[in-house]
Amino acid sequence: MGMAYLVYPGAIHTRFHHAIGAMHLMGMAIETLRGKGCEISAEEEEGVMVAILLHDIGHGPYSHALEHAIVGGISHEAISEMLMDRLNEEFHGALDLAISIFRNNYRKLFLHQLVSSQLDCDRMDYLSRDSFFTGVSEGIIGFDRIIKMLNVRDNQLVVEEKAIYSIEKFIVARRLMYWQVYLHKTCVAAEHMLVNILKRAKFLANEGMELFATPNFRHFLHHNISYDDFLQFPEHLQNFSRLDDYDVYTSVKVWADAPDFILSHLCRGILERKLYRTEMSREEIDPLRYVKMIERAVDRYHVSAEDASYFVFTDTLYNRAYQVNDGNINILAKDGTVKDITMASDNTTLGALANTVEKHILCYMKDLCRD
Amino acid sequence: MGMAYLVYPGAIHTRFHHAIGAMHLMGMAIETLRGKGCEISAEEEEGVMVAILLHDIGHGPYSHALEHAIVGGISHEAISEMLMDRLNEEFHGALDLAISIFRNNYRKLFLHQLVSSQLDCDRMDYLSRDSFFTGVSEGIIGFDRIIKMLNVRDNQLVVEEKAIYSIEKFIVARRLMYWQVYLHKTCVAAEHMLVNILKRAKFLANEGMELFATPNFRHFLHHNISYDDFLQFPEHLQNFSRLDDYDVYTSVKVWADAPDFILSHLCRGILERKLYRTEMSREEIDPLRYVKMIERAVDRYHVSAEDASYFVFTDTLYNRAYQVNDGNINILAKDGTVKDITMASDNTTLGALANTVEKHILCYMKDLCRD
Amino acid sequence: MGMAYLVYPGAIHTRFHHAIGAMHLMGMAIETLRGKGCEISAEEEEGVMVAILLHDIGHGPYSHALEHAIVGGISHEAISEMLMDRLNEEFHGALDLAISIFRNNYRKLFLHQLVSSQLDCDRMDYLSRDSFFTGVSEGIIGFDRIIKMLNVRDNQLVVEEKAIYSIEKFIVARRLMYWQVYLHKTCVAAEHMLVNILKRAKFLANEGMELFATPNFRHFLHHNISYDDFLQFPEHLQNFSRLDDYDVYTSVKVWADAPDFILSHLCRGILERKLYRTEMSREEIDPLRYVKMIERAVDRYHVSAEDASYFVFTDTLYNRAYQVNDGNINILAKDGTVKDITMASDNTTLGALANTVEKHILCYMKDLCRD
Amino acid sequence: MGMAYLVYPGAIHTRFHHAIGAMHLMGMAIETLRGKGCEISAEEEEGVMVAILLHDIGHGPYSHALEHAIVGGISHEAISEMLMDRLNEEFHGALDLAISIFRNNYRKLFLHQLVSSQLDCDRMDYLSRDSFFTGVSEGIIGFDRIIKMLNVRDNQLVVEEKAIYSIEKFIVARRLMYWQVYLHKTCVAAEHMLVNILKRAKFLANEGMELFATPNFRHFLHHNISYDDFLQFPEHLQNFSRLDDYDVYTSVKVWADAPDFILSHLCRGILERKLYRTEMSREEIDPLRYVKMIERAVDRYHVSAEDASYFVFTDTLYNRAYQVNDGNINILAKDGTVKDITMASDNTTLGALANTVEKHILCYMKDLCRD
Repeated sequence: MGMAYLVYPGAIHTRFHHAIGAMHLMGMAIETLRGKGCEISAEEEEGVMVAILLHDIGHGPYSHALEHAIVGGISHEAISEMLMDRLNEEFHGALDLAISIFRNNYRKLFLHQLVSSQLDCDRMDYLSRDSFFTGVSEGIIGFDRIIKMLNVRDNQLVVEEKAIYSIEKFIVARRLMYWQVYLHKTCVAAEHMLVNILKRAKFLANEGMELFATPNFRHFLHHNISYDDFLQFPEHLQNFSRLDDYDVYTSVKVWADAPDFILSHLCRGILERKLYRTEMSREEIDPLRYVKMIERAVDRYHVSAEDASYFVFTDTLYNRAYQVNDGNINILAKDGTVKDITMASDNTTLGALANTVEKHILCYMKDLCRD
Repeated sequence: MGMAYLVYPGAIHTRFHHAIGAMHLMGMAIETLRGKGCEISAEEEEGVMVAILLHDIGHGPYSHALEHAIVGGISHEAISEMLMDRLNEEFHGALDLAISIFRNNYRKLFLHQLVSSQLDCDRMDYLSRDSFFTGVSEGIIGFDRIIKMLNVRDNQLVVEEKAIYSIEKFIVARRLMYWQVYLHKTCVAAEHMLVNILKRAKFLANEGMELFATPNFRHFLHHNISYDDFLQFPEHLQNFSRLDDYDVYTSVKVWADAPDFILSHLCRGILERKLYRTEMSREEIDPLRYVKMIERAVDRYHVSAEDASYFVFTDTLYNRAYQVNDGNINILAKDGTVKDITMASDNTTLGALANTVEKHILCYMKDLCRD
Repeated sequence: MGMAYLVYPGAIHTRFHHAIGAMHLMGMAIETLRGKGCEISAEEEEGVMVAILLHDIGHGPYSHALEHAIVGGISHEAISEMLMDRLNEEFHGALDLAISIFRNNYRKLFLHQLVSSQLDCDRMDYLSRDSFFTGVSEGIIGFDRIIKMLNVRDNQLVVEEKAIYSIEKFIVARRLMYWQVYLHKTCVAAEHMLVNILKRAKFLANEGMELFATPNFRHFLHHNISYDDFLQFPEHLQNFSRLDDYDVYTSVKVWADAPDFILSHLCRGILERKLYRTEMSREEIDPLRYVKMIERAVDRYHVSAEDASYFVFTDTLYNRAYQVNDGNINILAKDGTVKDITMASDNTTLGALANTVEKHILCYMKDLCRD
Repeated sequence: MGMAYLVYPGAIHTRFHHAIGAMHLMGMAIETLRGKGCEISAEEEEGVMVAILLHDIGHGPYSHALEHAIVGGISHEAISEMLMDRLNEEFHGALDLAISIFRNNYRKLFLHQLVSSQLDCDRMDYLSRDSFFTGVSEGIIGFDRIIKMLNVRDNQLVVEEKAIYSIEKFIVARRLMYWQVYLHKTCVAAEHMLVNILKRAKFLANEGMELFATPNFRHFLHHNISYDDFLQFPEHLQNFSRLDDYDVYTSVKVWADAPDFILSHLCRGILERKLYRTEMSREEIDPLRYVKMIERAVDRYHVSAEDASYFVFTDTLYNRAYQVNDGNINILAKDGTVKDITMASDNTTLGALANTVEKHILCYMKDLCRD
């Protein structure tokens, strides 16, 4: 959960916990489906279990921050696939089926949907887990009941009508967790601060400055590695797989004493919990206000207007609780027909959750604020 | 929770638990409000605590069933007020303030709102409690967080903006608990069966038939007591206060061997869990289908068409998650303004939860069903 | 848990919950044992599941109270066996194996031990359940871990050495639950009061007095039914099986207005929670003190010295946390040897838990006490 | 909990959580004691709250490992006191009372006992917390009940007799958590491996080898700092306060590729979870067996017999559940007398828990083991 522990101190659970948990839910789902006469062979079981276990393996430390700032533009999904392929070589093809399911190339489509759809084991685990460790009860979902109500029709994962209220709750829970946790303004502020630290460090490294870093981390600071590089030179992936939060956070600690003002000021911000102040609203940010804050930063920190954007910036957050036409949640009625959840619910308002909600933020260092 | 234990076997918690629990939440609410500078004197604290402790005291055994069938037309609220008045006499006026708050006659309106409004301690307790004892996770609400966010503005209870997602969750949770628990079709079926048992017993008693009953219960079976009778003759209230589930259920057990077929068949239905089958739909019940089932009952049980309605009947269930203009939930924005929750939320769909959802049911004895 | 709800208001769980829960644990135990290569056929599984489901079926309402006072001297185990035999007839011998396991006549002795021994599914369920519903955390045991560590050696149930601390905890938890809950002095007082009520009612019924009761309950008040009667005349068992808490408690409520002073005074004691005061000590009760209280009762209530014992009496409570030589808990060491838990533990003190602790109580009505 | 997460993957809670938790319990304890008429001024409340908040502040990363291997012989208690003194200066004497309570120099002795004794808020928090995060139910204690039963007599913290079983449970829980978690053989193995890594790194640094480390950590690797140095030169304490798990673990990761075989082999052991195999027994380790394993290590790794002790060694673990005459737990009887828990309990065996249990371990790298 990235920097969310700065807001929710209990949120220190790891990606390892999540992977094991999602695999546990997958086991329950398979048992349920088999109990309803859906055929899943031992090979398919292993395949789908491996697929869910590894579904997030391409995430680096502080995933989203790193993705943007360090491994320029290569998505964690792409890296996940590369790592699975590497493991597959190492295990002499034992992951063939897992990879095929992961990439949605396997004929039993519902297996992929268990790994990745709007009601997959991934989401059911992370909502439950994040809700538990943050203490935000709004995210609690009835995952055991939902799983018991899963079924398969026409090769598609469906949910039996009885569970319709549990699904409705699941969609609402997801919406609430977004605004209350994942897009919580202080979490967002901390995340952006880390992104800016990494961007600055990368910039300085490119300029030739010597920065403290572990050998693995230095590799990514000093090289701009493209997708093709990753494919061609195995050492990039090797180094990436060894990177973890320790490499990054240790550097942030050391950089707090770096000679570059921008880098050290931002690092101290994280360490001493002097995060950006974040103003969030449904209206767009007033450009005049933004410009004024930039001017203050230029004034106060003696930096260029361009560099001031390390300290003042705007962004837009999006959240859509349910996405029509992308891994839909299908409800199996008692009469055997299958409908999208937004059609099946008597909640005339559920459809509206498919709208995207936008919020605009203005972030700036607190010491720029007089009031 | 009436007969809900027939569906959710864990749901055996009592009204006593609920009263104590709601009082506990009230204590938390008072502490929070005082901590924010809202003045509540020791007398007012006692008053509002007594009011919430006694808010449900007028409920008889299997409350809703009894209200309709035995104490014809006198609401449990009316009886609550009579009992509070009686206690007040006994305690020489010590309940004056509690009663004044309960009846919304006290100048600090927010105290009444803590006892009775759309975000009162009553609802927060029963949603949490019923969710816990049924295991229906959809009803879990963040009551501790909601209470910590309570405040008072212009003599009205308000919730600080920060808690807006917790409130949204609270409203959705209430909606889901209604459909999944309180209006669950098997719970509704059992409830109606008990109502019909009591109606039949009352009818037979009026006809002069001797039925097994405790002295207290017999009092209500054999007399038709009006609201004015209750006020005039203290023994009615005295008898009522001694009635509990034991009186009713013991009689149901004995009546299973009663000579009257209708009474004994219905009682066996409850005891042996042969409840009505309930068909529920958003459309109105087809009158032809209803008539056909009535005919089958006449045929099979050799009863009149009128009496057949003990075994076959229709009804309509209503549920509205949030009611505009009746004990509204007000949100206190950071700028100090106060808005109704449906205006304050970015969930454009929350307003729609203020619509009433109707469902129609057709109930009939299972042995009338050939398919 | 009899009258324990008078001390622990949450303790309203039922025997039905316990039976289902113990069966659930049995399912886990069977799965574990099979996973370790222990053969259990589908018939044996059904047998042992039925045996645990029905193991308590002979308990009447407020079991221990009723056993002593109403069904004179016939143990609930004897009645359990009679009921199982009756069910077996009804199901054409389908319970043969279950009964054989229950009576320890089946060759696979470990199956009986799962139903009845010092580490059976019965105890694991009731300790966990009673601990949960009373809120007494001292009774929490690691039942899931214990079950996962079960094994079978030489036809005996054993526990793998790894779980030795969980077992130690289990034995201590049992000891603590006894003193803190089952033998809590107020629970004991309430239990004795109910026994005395039933004794008095039975006495009055034998004297020919008309007492309110349901037909089933009246059957046992007015007849003294022997073990042989139970065997010979099926209606006794039939009536017994229909008795529940409702029959008994309803009568207690009505008897509070009975003309007999002893009966009505005791019934009011229960209803108004004016229970006996209980003095508990490790020393024997001073006989002079006992005699003095009896004299006070004679004086105050105008009853004979004999009848005064309804209001004043002594008793001795026993508790032994672990019983050597009766369904021992055997530990399977890594080297394959099997030892009794008291030999296997490094807790030199565990052996001492096999001692019986005795406590003496003096009970009397509170209104006999001047100080 | 050091390396315990290698056995109990959930055990990732932090010292910060523990400090906040212990402070929370302290708040409950103060409220209880005040409610019983024990005078605690606002200054004393602040003092004791600060004392418990900071009681562990001197612990370095992987506390016990670091204490032995890096900050040679300076206890974490000594460092805690130095840090509190430093903070006291910074806050102009605001910690005077807190420090006085912490050092047991304050006249209200019971305040110190709440911070440090055999029933202090520290232990109550860590037992509960560690039990929760490991899932080891044996460690669950009734902390809320124990706290509600606290009292003060003759300036000493006492527990009211009613809670005697909760205390008994507390002592047993502590014993079980020691053997099952804190002294779990795999946890012990991992802890020793880290100690040996740090010892080796320190040795190599002293030899003049260049090792990767953050500036703070390097400070302690390359200098041997005495207690007096700490007192005299503030930069030592400054550096120490900035050390955390990140510094240490990052180095372990980098050192896995160090040229020194001993260092890199041990670091890989931690990273790849190839921990020592640990044999644990109540008897002393056979010296011949130890010598044989040393010989194997010499053979296999081509190291001297002295260096072989990085890979093979013995140790003795001690555990005493209750310590007579050191911060005793005193029970307040109903008659007002105060007794030590071992005298007050009817558990004749509790006294025996005051005995020290010793276990001996032999640890060696798994690749030394042929069988």
